[in-house]
Amino acid sequence: MLTSDGRLGVAIVGCGAVGSEVARTLRERQHTLQNRSGVRLELRAVVSRTFRTARAMGLEEELLFDRLEDALAERQIDCVVELIGGLDQAHAAIHEALSAGKHVVTANKALLATHGSELIAHARRNGVTIAFEASCAAGIPILRALYDGLAANEIEALYGIVNGTCNYILTKMVDHGERYIDALSAAQAERYAEADPTLDVDGTDSAHKIAIMATLAFGAHVDYRQLHVEGINRLSLDDVTYATRLGYIVKLLAVARRYNGGLAVFVRPAFISREHPLAWVSGPFNAVSIYGDATGHTMYYGRGAGGTPTASAVVADLVSIARGAYQPVFRAPCFWPQPESETSAAETTGANTTARNPQLIAVEELETRFYLRMSVDDTPGALARIADVLGKHDISIASVFQAEAPDERAPEPVHVVVTLHSTTEGRLRAAVKRIEALKSVRSPVSIIPIIDEHPERSFAGA
Amino acid sequence: MLTSDGRLGVAIVGCGAVGSEVARTLRERQHTLQNRSGVRLELRAVVSRTFRTARAMGLEEELLFDRLEDALAERQIDCVVELIGGLDQAHAAIHEALSAGKHVVTANKALLATHGSELIAHARRNGVTIAFEASCAAGIPILRALYDGLAANEIEALYGIVNGTCNYILTKMVDHGERYIDALSAAQAERYAEADPTLDVDGTDSAHKIAIMATLAFGAHVDYRQLHVEGINRLSLDDVTYATRLGYIVKLLAVARRYNGGLAVFVRPAFISREHPLAWVSGPFNAVSIYGDATGHTMYYGRGAGGTPTASAVVADLVSIARGAYQPVFRAPCFWPQPESETSAAETTGANTTARNPQLIAVEELETRFYLRMSVDDTPGALARIADVLGKHDISIASVFQAEAPDERAPEPVHVVVTLHSTTEGRLRAAVKRIEALKSVRSPVSIIPIIDEHPERSFAGA
Repeated sequence: MLTSDGRLGVAIVGCGAVGSEVARTLRERQHTLQNRSGVRLELRAVVSRTFRTARAMGLEEELLFDRLEDALAERQIDCVVELIGGLDQAHAAIHEALSAGKHVVTANKALLATHGSELIAHARRNGVTIAFEASCAAGIPILRALYDGLAANEIEALYGIVNGTCNYILTKMVDHGERYIDALSAAQAERYAEADPTLDVDGTDSAHKIAIMATLAFGAHVDYRQLHVEGINRLSLDDVTYATRLGYIVKLLAVARRYNGGLAVFVRPAFISREHPLAWVSGPFNAVSIYGDATGHTMYYGRGAGGTPTASAVVADLVSIARGAYQPVFRAPCFWPQPESETSAAETTGANTTARNPQLIAVEELETRFYLRMSVDDTPGALARIADVLGKHDISIASVFQAEAPDERAPEPVHVVVTLHSTTEGRLRAAVKRIEALKSVRSPVSIIPIIDEHPERSFAGA
Repeated sequence: MLTSDGRLGVAIVGCGAVGSEVARTLRERQHTLQNRSGVRLELRAVVSRTFRTARAMGLEEELLFDRLEDALAERQIDCVVELIGGLDQAHAAIHEALSAGKHVVTANKALLATHGSELIAHARRNGVTIAFEASCAAGIPILRALYDGLAANEIEALYGIVNGTCNYILTKMVDHGERYIDALSAAQAERYAEADPTLDVDGTDSAHKIAIMATLAFGAHVDYRQLHVEGINRLSLDDVTYATRLGYIVKLLAVARRYNGGLAVFVRPAFISREHPLAWVSGPFNAVSIYGDATGHTMYYGRGAGGTPTASAVVADLVSIARGAYQPVFRAPCFWPQPESETSAAETTGANTTARNPQLIAVEELETRFYLRMSVDDTPGALARIADVLGKHDISIASVFQAEAPDERAPEPVHVVVTLHSTTEGRLRAAVKRIEALKSVRSPVSIIPIIDEHPERSFAGA
């Protein structure tokens, strides 16, 4: 139990869609949460710029503070919930809370991916914790799977669909043949995409999340700024359509896997088989497949965004802190190890929390299968020249598909669609550069990896 | 941290497929587990009737004990892992361990479903815990979702595919058109079914698991002996085939949901839509869909049986106990409340751990859609008479399908397949009794519920 009197005083900083749901849950479910945790979770302060939502909810005026500093001074707070979002203000609030010896719960993936190591070192120095289940998949308890449920495993790989906006858009493109730009508008109309969707559709949001998950999964600090990240914002409907025709589906995958003694971590649109469990995940839903050496494949599915699912994870973290169950997890040496460059800071915490930075494998070195789509002038020998370039780069063709020109009298370029056997992306890019230089081929060539389901070790029967 | 010296002494009782994997993990992964938990997990005793597996693994002779009593006397044990299986011996071992003030980890669902309340009360009296993640879905951390990850939610419903043997058999029937008996043989050949598969195929194993999960999910003691349980052992390939034809798939579902102020908990073969996420779960895989009021639908998928996945969950429980994270979870008042009849025993624990027994709703009272298949003599008016009986019972037909007789000259009974709009099973059974009494209808009529995806509350966009 955290506090001697069986109570946990909570301050919420930021009272928008998530903050107001957290406040509501703490108020309306106090008895249940106490039965579950053995601790009374008490909302003692709400810090916000405007109190529109807080007042609409009927929160007492005495709970409302303009500044965290005042709340910490005037109320007995054990845990600060940061739900401001963004970097600077959120960073300042968390730093202030940790410095004051308060536990922190946050949903802020951008902040954790950017400043996580520094904040976690600061928490350790101050003998408190930062919990962040809500940061990667909202209500899906995916971080708990990594740090608790699968604690006996060496994690071999994570494959995630972790951005609901992108998955919603892709589902529209796949199921309804909508172009990217129309699907994005539909997503905005249904509030699955923000007015400025850049960080979602360009893959940055997924990169934040996979960096956090990979850091926990592999006990090695992964910096999202070092990752290969592509979004869906340049994806052509043609490629989505050919995927279906070939038995695949296009998903924006966030991948982190062990590879040749290092880690391959990236975000990009990929073809996956329609039989792959992640192919089932449609609309705004998210899912993460985890391959552990003992469990084999496990998958976690649900709504990865939204006010109430995110609040669910925030309150679960509060319950865990209230129980005293999260503190030993956070204190464990390999929970979010410090990057080597920050070893000196980490050493002052007294714990062996540093880890060799993982060797990140560049995507150019990864062996995988690929899909290519080329716009080719329908002239004799065009396909032969393409095949020749691929062959000279030691790249083996698995299938070829060329549509008939729509009108023979007014020849337009035709699509040549090729799937390839495994090769490295570096070799493929060299070949594609040569192909794009061919007179009969229009630039650019579409290149999309085909990602097979991760192999499991063999399992005997039940 | 559990022990003052940062070590957790473990005794394993039962050294078969799971026990040997637990031993192996504790030995081979000691350093990693210590990094993750902050505690050194030490295997200090293996209690077994034969030491064949233990010796084959190269375990030191000094670890091996014939009797738990001796191991507890001669070694410093903090936690006993019960992997004997079955009821009597396992019960004795756990009781002995708890009485000696040792924590217990077990995978034994039959024992927990039968004697869980008594053992948990005994653990509480002795100030120790019983952890049992491995009991319901092996390596899928489903109990952690219920007691930790979703702790902020009121759980509305659980829908589980929790028996890999049955799901393997059903997948063979659906995908390959095999009869039950042939699919069972295949499952046995591939070791997905035991030589005596009774407890799997008759639904008992699933009933144990849903009773345990429902007890945790609803904070109300659910006794598996009071549940409606049907297995797959009387399922006809005809019904499996018609399911596919109608856009459904047959799954053995273990269901626990709030219903009219009570709980509906049952195990039975059911039609679910091919669009339902549980329809994706094939072969030996398991999955549990949980509907929480904050998260909406989340689903947990993986291998629900087997030595290494089960060992994964056992070791995760050991890590959690070693960290000290599990103890406050177990101590919380509403974790596995005592049934009312055992209140006096519970009261001696000093905690408010009793809960009103839930009102279990009989399946006869549940409103759901249904599928019926009747073998009908191909005579004029037969269908009209069936429709008439249904109408008189106020049961509304949604679709009818009748195949042509294979040979008009030698008329055989034909299948009449009907799907119905929602009705109670009680009303339907009364109607079917009348239908079976019709001269043109052969007994028995197949009745299978059609279970729609559980409704979610509405979610605003991201």
